[in-house]
Amino acid sequence: MEQLLYWVGLAAVAVSALTGVLEAGRQKMDLVGVVMVGAATALGGGTVRDLLLDRPVFWIADEMYLVVAFVTTLLAFFAARGLKLPPRLFLIPDAIGLALFTIVGTQLALAWQAPWLAATLLGVITGVVGGVLRDILCNQVPLVFVRGELYVSAAWGGALVLVGMNGSGCSPVLSAWTGMAVVLATRLVAMKFRITLPTYSEKA
Amino acid sequence: MEQLLYWVGLAAVAVSALTGVLEAGRQKMDLVGVVMVGAATALGGGTVRDLLLDRPVFWIADEMYLVVAFVTTLLAFFAARGLKLPPRLFLIPDAIGLALFTIVGTQLALAWQAPWLAATLLGVITGVVGGVLRDILCNQVPLVFVRGELYVSAAWGGALVLVGMNGSGCSPVLSAWTGMAVVLATRLVAMKFRITLPTYSEKA
Amino acid sequence: MEQLLYWVGLAAVAVSALTGVLEAGRQKMDLVGVVMVGAATALGGGTVRDLLLDRPVFWIADEMYLVVAFVTTLLAFFAARGLKLPPRLFLIPDAIGLALFTIVGTQLALAWQAPWLAATLLGVITGVVGGVLRDILCNQVPLVFVRGELYVSAAWGGALVLVGMNGSGCSPVLSAWTGMAVVLATRLVAMKFRITLPTYSEKA
Repeated sequence: MEQLLYWVGLAAVAVSALTGVLEAGRQKMDLVGVVMVGAATALGGGTVRDLLLDRPVFWIADEMYLVVAFVTTLLAFFAARGLKLPPRLFLIPDAIGLALFTIVGTQLALAWQAPWLAATLLGVITGVVGGVLRDILCNQVPLVFVRGELYVSAAWGGALVLVGMNGSGCSPVLSAWTGMAVVLATRLVAMKFRITLPTYSEKA
Repeated sequence: MEQLLYWVGLAAVAVSALTGVLEAGRQKMDLVGVVMVGAATALGGGTVRDLLLDRPVFWIADEMYLVVAFVTTLLAFFAARGLKLPPRLFLIPDAIGLALFTIVGTQLALAWQAPWLAATLLGVITGVVGGVLRDILCNQVPLVFVRGELYVSAAWGGALVLVGMNGSGCSPVLSAWTGMAVVLATRLVAMKFRITLPTYSEKA
Repeated sequence: MEQLLYWVGLAAVAVSALTGVLEAGRQKMDLVGVVMVGAATALGGGTVRDLLLDRPVFWIADEMYLVVAFVTTLLAFFAARGLKLPPRLFLIPDAIGLALFTIVGTQLALAWQAPWLAATLLGVITGVVGGVLRDILCNQVPLVFVRGELYVSAAWGGALVLVGMNGSGCSPVLSAWTGMAVVLATRLVAMKFRITLPTYSEKA
């Protein structure tokens, strides 16, 4: 299980760094700017999670994460440069990063003895903070706040499924994969069909 | 005294979650959005305080805070939905939350051996961060930065009164209540009469 | 060496508080607002660094930093009030603060056993966060994101020089001074001649 979390964590870092490069590239940032946006996207969510749980910050404790973030960023920078990519393309790796980070974050929080409700919230925070940083640094309205496509809801749903399956005795590995699938499927389906939740409608 | 701080803390969480719901509601967010804004408003200030003091984060260490924040948010969501509320109404619970959080934050920092000047600053941070998060998430200019109605000054004044009374040997409970009264009264009077501080006037 | 870091840290706090006052003054904030912007500029970068490294936050552990930040802010407020200053003047103390904080941050991170790549990133964070907070609080586009004048690149270059010199056996004091000189010189020359890095140019 720890092995699984480690590899999923690295994959999440790589895929998030990629979304950072794609968006920073559209803003015509220079190389150092792109590297910084890539690093912030890849490392932001897990950093906040580790601070809240009072764990050692993952990319300071284990250099591998930083190396993966930098290498992915540089490769993506030189590979994507000059390619003509549809602007919404980066929503797919963004959804994958959301799914992976949310589940890793929830699992880590549970392993760190956080109560289950707090653990789901920590999972959501791990999942969304990197993307929020990326969008702010690139001067975009954060995806979390774009109405009409479940984002936080998708992450939270997956975290709740994970906690529920864990609690009813499923194997942690199965729960983790199911949770990831729930986040990813919810988000992709909601984007495709523009599914929304009912809103608070004050008659003012 | 610890009992008092605990209950005041829970009350501050509830009243701040309420302001989050009122403002998120005006933005026509969906239920999950409203819950997240309510949670961020209620938990943001104390979270930053706990990180700075290197204490365990309060809502991870004690589940009760999170439960209160969620229950208040859900109740407020369904109660306020459809009601026609004056838009400035939420300034009253906001001022109460500011007063409660500032005093709890200052007291906790003093109990944690922070020097008095740092303790007043930590109190102000505890008091204002939740509201700043709420306003940013709702795309409003944070109340802290609206000119013409003492906000940070009210919080800081109350924190200084608390520290002064503590230092001159008053009972901690009396100092805490007086501090809260000072913050609340200053803020409400300043709002009512639009009291301002003199500004820096560079002749440029 | 520790002595040097301590004094450089105090100087960085003072010079950053000054930039905060100059910018908050231009926004015609009141005294409490100016004090808060000064404090955030002076203390923000080091605070984030200490949280990431899980060190005690420097201005809570040692009161001197807070005193220097407050005294500088008050002196600058009353001295600069009414003076007619060119608006870009504050870029000079800003560059000095960037240089000092970056080097102090990198050194501290190395002393705290962070891997070298993480240490350079922590140095950059220490250098830029205060200014970013200042610019956000004053409703300006953060200097880090203004295109066309090396900012992060200057800081990162200096941090890399410091790490390289340390690694090849130079005295830490010499490495520190050289690192600071590199940051400051790069930033000033880039501002003067508007030097830029090549940008990512997607043909979209």
